[in-house]
Amino acid sequence: MNLVEKILKGERAAIAKAITLVESSRDNDKEESKELVSKLILNPGHSVRVGFSGSPGVGKSSFIESFGSYLVKKDYKLGILAIDPSSQLTGGSILGDKTRMSEISKNENTFIRSTPSRGSLGGVSFGTREAAIILDSAGYDFIFIETVGVGQSEIMATNLVDIFSLIVGPGSGDELQGIKKGITEYADIFIVNKADGDLKLQASKTAADYKSALHYTSSSEESASKKVLLVSSLEQTGMDEVIKTIEEIIFSNKRSGVFEKRRSDQLAYWIKEEVRNHIQHKVEIGISENNQLEEMIKRVSLGKDTMHNTVDLILKKLMK
Amino acid sequence: MNLVEKILKGERAAIAKAITLVESSRDNDKEESKELVSKLILNPGHSVRVGFSGSPGVGKSSFIESFGSYLVKKDYKLGILAIDPSSQLTGGSILGDKTRMSEISKNENTFIRSTPSRGSLGGVSFGTREAAIILDSAGYDFIFIETVGVGQSEIMATNLVDIFSLIVGPGSGDELQGIKKGITEYADIFIVNKADGDLKLQASKTAADYKSALHYTSSSEESASKKVLLVSSLEQTGMDEVIKTIEEIIFSNKRSGVFEKRRSDQLAYWIKEEVRNHIQHKVEIGISENNQLEEMIKRVSLGKDTMHNTVDLILKKLMK
Repeated sequence: MNLVEKILKGERAAIAKAITLVESSRDNDKEESKELVSKLILNPGHSVRVGFSGSPGVGKSSFIESFGSYLVKKDYKLGILAIDPSSQLTGGSILGDKTRMSEISKNENTFIRSTPSRGSLGGVSFGTREAAIILDSAGYDFIFIETVGVGQSEIMATNLVDIFSLIVGPGSGDELQGIKKGITEYADIFIVNKADGDLKLQASKTAADYKSALHYTSSSEESASKKVLLVSSLEQTGMDEVIKTIEEIIFSNKRSGVFEKRRSDQLAYWIKEEVRNHIQHKVEIGISENNQLEEMIKRVSLGKDTMHNTVDLILKKLMK
Repeated sequence: MNLVEKILKGERAAIAKAITLVESSRDNDKEESKELVSKLILNPGHSVRVGFSGSPGVGKSSFIESFGSYLVKKDYKLGILAIDPSSQLTGGSILGDKTRMSEISKNENTFIRSTPSRGSLGGVSFGTREAAIILDSAGYDFIFIETVGVGQSEIMATNLVDIFSLIVGPGSGDELQGIKKGITEYADIFIVNKADGDLKLQASKTAADYKSALHYTSSSEESASKKVLLVSSLEQTGMDEVIKTIEEIIFSNKRSGVFEKRRSDQLAYWIKEEVRNHIQHKVEIGISENNQLEEMIKRVSLGKDTMHNTVDLILKKLMK
């Protein structure tokens, strides 16, 4: 039985092997990966891809663990793909060593993979997209894609999922005005976490703040389609509402054609991204292999040439 | 008197006009801007460029206002360039409407400009680099470059400044482990803000946490060169230490050659960035002008072709 057949049967070892393959940056693996994915894509499953984003500290992992175990108890099959931002300097993975989501990771109906992101070349997101295709073909009901709250990776994540949700903590209303504006526009669902104990009241207030902010910043149609939900990961409350809301949005989007439209827009996005990445890669090779470059830059340092002349010269060399 | 002469005399109106010019994306302006900058660069001043970064909520603007007014009282001339992250979706500027830094903005020895960032093409940072050259030629002592705590713009900011400082709030020790790893490695100075009132004790504790974290994560040489400082923007305390530390680091870096080395590395970075941006720009035009693209993507949607074949086809078309 070959890898494709094993994946279609949902065999965990085959899934793990396939995901490792699509994440690989070796040229041989890339060819094999392309072939695998083009076969799997002809055997689509029925999975819904849900994105979860949020700043560090809002309890994103706890929520996913709690919501995940809720879904698994209801006999759903769940795949979790976490995009793990690496340090741009060290290339190290932050979450790499942590044993996360210990409870649900033991369940045979869940498949969890955490992948380090690889900076601006976007390698991981391409790998993540393909990992989602593998899990879809393998018969998973839900595929969660988890990103930490950093600009670029979130924009990419929104292009991987059918529903995008932002997890926020009590009292995080500031974010609405601030840095997260782009993402709050993208999000379909806002999940206010930590609605328990001392923070319960504040969480309710935060939910109300988000509701009114949505009312003021979106068109009435748009704001009606966005939902703000209150949950406690600790007490596993509010999870019924989350799954109900996801299912309602998917149902409504499928009926209106939004679901299909999003998926085909996303395909266009990834094709263009892949084109950009190929060219960027070629440019980087051109820059690093050009041994006259350092000397040309030195001339600018010494005031013997201008930056702009030098840029033009390098461009001409690269374009040849 | 032409624009260059007016700038060299420090005329505010000329500086403002020149910065608007270097920020412009119009082709004509770009040519004029290149010419202007190549003339100014032959007349360098003596300014030190200091980067300030930090997450929303740490009181970054309050610190810059407080530290700025401290410097202005000491008769320093101060330029402040704030990189203002726009929403990737709306293109709108978040800080645009806010009247910020009201007190020092009235002072004739300060020049403040807030520029929206323009997404991945990096346009603004190029403009910011040139704005710093203008202020330098105009005789400013310090040029502050302020960025909000988002990955890519911070990496760019570190390539614009002689000293990079990270402003943190009391109790923000989490960040050291988390998302900001890349930046904490880059930072020369950590400024723990809000060391006043109820937060005073916690701010001291945070400073101690940063010191020990630096001790454990850096080499001894590296950790000795990095400073952790406590300030209160509200009470304008700790500012002596900040300016003293900046001057010591600059003095030591000039003596060791690190100062010059950084500047020439930065020049190399910006030349390469500019080369990348030119090519990226050409690729975007190629993608948007290719009217067969949508049809090719549609074929993938319908399962008539694979994504990877299509990517190859588009690349071949663009390379022609």
